[in-house]
Amino acid sequence: VRIAVDAMGGDQAPLEIVRGALKAARREHGIEIVLVGDEPQIRKVLQDLESKTKISIHHTPDWIRMDEPGAAAVKKKKQASIVVCCELLKRGEVNAIVSAGNTSGVIGACLLTLGRIPGIRRPALAVMFPTLTTPSLLLDLGATVDCKPEYLVQFGTMGAIYVEKVLGRPHPKVGIVNIGEEHTKGNALVKETYELLQHTALNFVGSVEPKQLINGHVDVAVADGFSGNLMLKMGEAMGEWIMKTVKTRIGWNPVYLGAAAALTPVLKSLRKHLDHSEYGGAPLLGVAGVVIKSHGRAKALTIRNAIRVARKMAESNTVDVIASTLNESPTPAES
Amino acid sequence: VRIAVDAMGGDQAPLEIVRGALKAARREHGIEIVLVGDEPQIRKVLQDLESKTKISIHHTPDWIRMDEPGAAAVKKKKQASIVVCCELLKRGEVNAIVSAGNTSGVIGACLLTLGRIPGIRRPALAVMFPTLTTPSLLLDLGATVDCKPEYLVQFGTMGAIYVEKVLGRPHPKVGIVNIGEEHTKGNALVKETYELLQHTALNFVGSVEPKQLINGHVDVAVADGFSGNLMLKMGEAMGEWIMKTVKTRIGWNPVYLGAAAALTPVLKSLRKHLDHSEYGGAPLLGVAGVVIKSHGRAKALTIRNAIRVARKMAESNTVDVIASTLNESPTPAES
Repeated sequence: VRIAVDAMGGDQAPLEIVRGALKAARREHGIEIVLVGDEPQIRKVLQDLESKTKISIHHTPDWIRMDEPGAAAVKKKKQASIVVCCELLKRGEVNAIVSAGNTSGVIGACLLTLGRIPGIRRPALAVMFPTLTTPSLLLDLGATVDCKPEYLVQFGTMGAIYVEKVLGRPHPKVGIVNIGEEHTKGNALVKETYELLQHTALNFVGSVEPKQLINGHVDVAVADGFSGNLMLKMGEAMGEWIMKTVKTRIGWNPVYLGAAAALTPVLKSLRKHLDHSEYGGAPLLGVAGVVIKSHGRAKALTIRNAIRVARKMAESNTVDVIASTLNESPTPAES
Repeated sequence: VRIAVDAMGGDQAPLEIVRGALKAARREHGIEIVLVGDEPQIRKVLQDLESKTKISIHHTPDWIRMDEPGAAAVKKKKQASIVVCCELLKRGEVNAIVSAGNTSGVIGACLLTLGRIPGIRRPALAVMFPTLTTPSLLLDLGATVDCKPEYLVQFGTMGAIYVEKVLGRPHPKVGIVNIGEEHTKGNALVKETYELLQHTALNFVGSVEPKQLINGHVDVAVADGFSGNLMLKMGEAMGEWIMKTVKTRIGWNPVYLGAAAALTPVLKSLRKHLDHSEYGGAPLLGVAGVVIKSHGRAKALTIRNAIRVARKMAESNTVDVIASTLNESPTPAES
């Protein structure tokens, strides 16, 4: 499997990205990595690390910065590293892409260059959401903020296929993110989607409230990109807040100093559990190719894990399965 | 000030509700309470508590259960306690209502009996959201799940008036809940609302992401009822999860037993901070009268605080100020 890694995308690119690629190349068998980006900058890191692994460099002089409007930049910067990654994938020179770059840039480049899987209306960014049991796949995270019920049904189908093929969980339970358990709850979008999901071949289990999501009630949780992103951000913000508050309150009270020392590993393990780096990144489902989007703050370990996920997704033919599933039961025409 | 308290609404009604009403009647001067509900049941609690306070009972034999479809029940049960509360308020026999009952029942009864403030398109349930600094008012929490931009602008206006009149904070900062800071972020509803809010007399400060909300960046955070409820539920679920995880991980490890004992007060104070009982309840803004909705799980202390909030809101003439503000700058006609 050949994987293109966007060496210039991410807050700590190219250093952490190249390091992550090296880790993957050393530890994973049968994997080849193409680092896409500015050769002099990449060489500098590679030399430092004295690598002798299956890594090649595909030079391109331009890239999209983390803080520029990504979708617009994609159209102007034909030689941006993420755009070149997409071209390599389209030409079949690589089997997958990993990028920690500008999110709207990654999505824009994929849609413009790779396009969608035939029949797929909109793409969805899917993240492994940590729960009390096994992590659940939550999608969309913001690739499609304005959704129609049919888009959400497709998100459910793509999510279920991903969970089954890449994570190896048969008959995944699919739920729709909602603010109540009954099918009469929710906004118009959710109510209509609920109706449609009941008539699919999916293992649809109904509404999933945030609490149920966290309890690991479903394998796949479907939401529009606005709600999904809001929920993820709220969870992260709340987690950070509580950690900070516990630390602060322990901090100023001498009685708690011993307790604080004893608790540090507990808080650390909790933080790790909340951290997404273990899952490497979010698959961008619905585009015609394997694309894993890592967090902008991704470090080497995250990139390495993202490469592993990209490989699994490529080897499992998830994209082909999505395409053929859609052909078997096409979604009703746009209303 | 006379306040009607729905004695039959809430998971622990009438016991905790009556107890809360008694607490308020004893401690707050110049307040009269009308307990609305089943007289024999209320009498039983009052006798137990041997009260000699300014409390009267308005008997009504029916009520809406916590688990029945509230909006439908309101139409059938003309003598339900919350419906009778609304009638007392409409006839001017009381100045405010407090209920911990079925949420859709409370909203339905208010809309059917009291109606909206002239010019207000939709009601909004507003909650005091705990932050790192002073709590922010977050609205809507689910009274209106399908929103148009004009509804959200009115939510902003009503929220700002409430914060200024009831909480005494001048020139409150108003933000719109969003998944990014820039005005180009968000779904169509948020982008259009952002545009409209810029042209109001409000102290509009732009987008507010969950993290900024928690940091206390704004006084009023506006969201559609679906997003607002989802965010609140996500915050609660995340908080409970982290507490539980910390406790569990400390629990099974003997090294941490001492730490756990020392930490209990810290976790308790944090839980109290996250708890809404301090603020008593959520004002239902936009209906033609003062209505405070307490959490279904409300206990006596929460009810007491809700009564205090209801009194403040009644004395500050918030409802009249909302009505007159709308007359001065009417919202554009429905598109």
